[in-house]
Amino acid sequence: MADSESLSGLLSACRLVCREYKSENTVVKIGEAAIGGEGPTIIAGPCAVESEHQILEIARLVKSHGIRIMRGGAFKPRTSPYSFTGLGEEGLRLLAKARRETGVRVVTEVLDAMDVPIIAEYADMLQIGSRNMQNYKLLKAAGRANKPVLLKRGMSARLDEFLMSAEYVMSEGNEQVVLCERGIRTFVEYSRNTLDLNVIPAIKQLSHLPVIVDPSHGTGHRSLVEPMSLAALAAGADGLIVEVHPQPEKSWSDPEQALSPEGFARLVDKVNHFIDWQKQYAGLATQT
Amino acid sequence: MADSESLSGLLSACRLVCREYKSENTVVKIGEAAIGGEGPTIIAGPCAVESEHQILEIARLVKSHGIRIMRGGAFKPRTSPYSFTGLGEEGLRLLAKARRETGVRVVTEVLDAMDVPIIAEYADMLQIGSRNMQNYKLLKAAGRANKPVLLKRGMSARLDEFLMSAEYVMSEGNEQVVLCERGIRTFVEYSRNTLDLNVIPAIKQLSHLPVIVDPSHGTGHRSLVEPMSLAALAAGADGLIVEVHPQPEKSWSDPEQALSPEGFARLVDKVNHFIDWQKQYAGLATQT
Amino acid sequence: MADSESLSGLLSACRLVCREYKSENTVVKIGEAAIGGEGPTIIAGPCAVESEHQILEIARLVKSHGIRIMRGGAFKPRTSPYSFTGLGEEGLRLLAKARRETGVRVVTEVLDAMDVPIIAEYADMLQIGSRNMQNYKLLKAAGRANKPVLLKRGMSARLDEFLMSAEYVMSEGNEQVVLCERGIRTFVEYSRNTLDLNVIPAIKQLSHLPVIVDPSHGTGHRSLVEPMSLAALAAGADGLIVEVHPQPEKSWSDPEQALSPEGFARLVDKVNHFIDWQKQYAGLATQT
Amino acid sequence: MADSESLSGLLSACRLVCREYKSENTVVKIGEAAIGGEGPTIIAGPCAVESEHQILEIARLVKSHGIRIMRGGAFKPRTSPYSFTGLGEEGLRLLAKARRETGVRVVTEVLDAMDVPIIAEYADMLQIGSRNMQNYKLLKAAGRANKPVLLKRGMSARLDEFLMSAEYVMSEGNEQVVLCERGIRTFVEYSRNTLDLNVIPAIKQLSHLPVIVDPSHGTGHRSLVEPMSLAALAAGADGLIVEVHPQPEKSWSDPEQALSPEGFARLVDKVNHFIDWQKQYAGLATQT
Repeated sequence: MADSESLSGLLSACRLVCREYKSENTVVKIGEAAIGGEGPTIIAGPCAVESEHQILEIARLVKSHGIRIMRGGAFKPRTSPYSFTGLGEEGLRLLAKARRETGVRVVTEVLDAMDVPIIAEYADMLQIGSRNMQNYKLLKAAGRANKPVLLKRGMSARLDEFLMSAEYVMSEGNEQVVLCERGIRTFVEYSRNTLDLNVIPAIKQLSHLPVIVDPSHGTGHRSLVEPMSLAALAAGADGLIVEVHPQPEKSWSDPEQALSPEGFARLVDKVNHFIDWQKQYAGLATQT
Repeated sequence: MADSESLSGLLSACRLVCREYKSENTVVKIGEAAIGGEGPTIIAGPCAVESEHQILEIARLVKSHGIRIMRGGAFKPRTSPYSFTGLGEEGLRLLAKARRETGVRVVTEVLDAMDVPIIAEYADMLQIGSRNMQNYKLLKAAGRANKPVLLKRGMSARLDEFLMSAEYVMSEGNEQVVLCERGIRTFVEYSRNTLDLNVIPAIKQLSHLPVIVDPSHGTGHRSLVEPMSLAALAAGADGLIVEVHPQPEKSWSDPEQALSPEGFARLVDKVNHFIDWQKQYAGLATQT
Repeated sequence: MADSESLSGLLSACRLVCREYKSENTVVKIGEAAIGGEGPTIIAGPCAVESEHQILEIARLVKSHGIRIMRGGAFKPRTSPYSFTGLGEEGLRLLAKARRETGVRVVTEVLDAMDVPIIAEYADMLQIGSRNMQNYKLLKAAGRANKPVLLKRGMSARLDEFLMSAEYVMSEGNEQVVLCERGIRTFVEYSRNTLDLNVIPAIKQLSHLPVIVDPSHGTGHRSLVEPMSLAALAAGADGLIVEVHPQPEKSWSDPEQALSPEGFARLVDKVNHFIDWQKQYAGLATQT
Repeated sequence: MADSESLSGLLSACRLVCREYKSENTVVKIGEAAIGGEGPTIIAGPCAVESEHQILEIARLVKSHGIRIMRGGAFKPRTSPYSFTGLGEEGLRLLAKARRETGVRVVTEVLDAMDVPIIAEYADMLQIGSRNMQNYKLLKAAGRANKPVLLKRGMSARLDEFLMSAEYVMSEGNEQVVLCERGIRTFVEYSRNTLDLNVIPAIKQLSHLPVIVDPSHGTGHRSLVEPMSLAALAAGADGLIVEVHPQPEKSWSDPEQALSPEGFARLVDKVNHFIDWQKQYAGLATQT
């Protein structure tokens, strides 16, 4: 196809991330859950682990909606050195406890190459945040870990740079990489970042890796999360990572963007119906 | 709602475009078709009117898919003074002929305030392009015309500026305005522009005007049109404006982005199924 | 030179604006003043003509510093239809009166092709603003006028697009075009726009047209005007266009960015010394 | 001053980096050289240390022009895992050897918190690159080192974020921080990045830290380096960091942007004359 040719010129230096290396879609397993396989996957949870009570409450909430992977930050990257930077290892222990009690799998951010072993001990999936998308020591350390990696796009990353960062992880032997779009920096004033859904079909043409979308950080406004979640799936995303908090306005970080339990319930219901429709339509299309 | 409050701070100087002025959604009528009413509306056609044969062929194609509004440029804004700039009034006559023969309604671009009367004579809807979003004489002239207006977002327009341009049209007495997102300028390399779907739910919070999306100009790549069309509707858009050409690679302008008749048929089929699902889900949600 | 080759690839479709068409620098004459000749030229004045008293006061002030070209808007493009949009033809008459009384030449903005004749009657130079950089009817009308044209860069214009807009003017027979950098739209929060001085040496490589800089609109903050003015000249600009107002905080538009008479006096003094140094250094360099 | 007030609203959470904390300008000492004191300082050298012969040749060249600080990468961050990533510790040894033989001080990049001790052992100043501007472990490790820090702005960093990253270093006890503007990501096509000189006077209003400019990475084109260097100094920069290579076209990385020895000699001559003029003008201004 003429268009995929024009896009493929973008990736002259890629190897392992490219469709040329592997034509079928990669499926990343996180316990019994999977990303990139049959139908989109929702990851949900708070911005940060705040207390045992909070994280257990959210784990049960998330579980009750059939969600199998929970997010939650124990080590938080913060613009200011004076902001709350997470509960650290105590946060990891609370995440592990929430997993034991509910069975949900856990993804949490790792900020530094040296922390990979301890986080890999507690978590089911390692998140590399947008600020660290080109922290190459960290990418390589994650590439030597025995856990799947969730790699978030940097705020000014072109597609070649984003995929090259995944290549860093894969070139160390870890091919379990999920890409995540979470908004780019533009002049726009009505969303904290510009969630760029165009990147989803572009990635699908060029790479076999699954790609999910973070509408919470991507828009920065609770009220934009539901429509942009649906839009992400319609554009072909393999899943969502969404912030939910028992009392969003009391969240210790990013209170503007977390969904309430009610808002989350509405989202999950709509997303599940949409996924059913997608499967049904794909079935129709195959019959023809 | 807390979030809509935070967004509404953006529009301190708006009047007629705001939800505060009019709470229910505006429905814009173009002949027997409508935008902003029940379910999304597709507008389709070539970038430019090239010949009688071409425009009639496309009008019939479009009609055969149940499409009731056709796009087609007679006066084309072009970056270079040496490029093809459209057939001019002859193009308008061909559009009118296509309407007579098929019954499809016609939207075409107006580049200058002085041209409003002649274009209003032939067309059913006046398009103001992204380069002219802040051409205030043109906006006011369109505001005095007796035809609905399709206003495209400028490539670096913030939301307040976009809505203020609609305010220019409305303040002259014409409240039949449809907004159109068609991509903003960013550093991104895999799409010609960055189609910004976040603007759709933001507009829906702040304004009663309908908003449609142009995935053809917004992405610049044929292969991104279908996924971004679905995504636009999932984000809440009231319609799409899509380029289709009998032989895209022979299109006199923008050959990279027009859909082929086959690609267009696939798009319409999927969009129609999606719209059915949306209505069905809305019905479910209402029952609860 | 390798680098100029890499840049020149940008302008495949240009003709008259290119160095290949004309190798020596174009000098644009505005009365006895000139832009692009020996040493940089300052244009100064208020954002808008507000009253006879105001414009005469500024004309005398400007004149007293040896400035020979005054700016001042009679037709103002404004984001909101409810803002002050200039005194119109009365403003033009006041500008003409200020010229008669002081001898300063006058540049003022033209917003629409139809207004070119009347503005050309009163003004010495026609300004085409950033919002109209791709208003092709206006560009062509200015190309048929017998007055030099000051063409401001659009807020999201690439260099090829900017130069192509100059090509529109030139292709109608008017080669007296001055380009003006006035800031591009980026994510930056400390300046209203991002004044992009990199474009100056880039233009100098590719085109023979003179280029000046507007640090007032380009930064939007009075306190950034002096340093960015010097920087513009150091980067090779052929001049500056600066806003000055007797009482900036009472300016009817853009009060944040106009210099006070004292600030303007400091700027002119420093700029004049800098220009002396530039000439002296150029002399030294030639001797070697 | 009204304008500085409007900018100072940007930095609500800053402490140590702010002018409120320390009103006089910070002077950072690198051996007998200094940045932020009397007159601008030039740092120059190759992108990467390639060999003993190369780095000694450049050290001598740089020294012969009176330059007292040399740059040169031993650990190079590269978009692709398959690119040359520097000579590592061997590169550090070669830099130390060049210092011994010529007396020039050495600044080199540190990519990871764990590498701070070894690099601090060899280098006179630690560079934190744009990709790591928000690598907080690295910032804190540099804050505990006994060496001055050169902190480069990230490609999509707002000013508050840039200064907050300096705050991370300072809050660990190291107040010897030099800020460096090196270009932001925009839609522009004629420079690899958009060197944003507006940030210089903005920083000077808000912070006491010195700020230098990297026109080599900032523009990505050799032919833009000289004009943008002069412009940076005219805007108030405390210095430059420039790439120079004996045979630029044979440079192992970024061959498009390094100056040749001849180009570098021209730059230094012009910069030195300009600095003389600045001092002379400052003297004149003081007398008045």
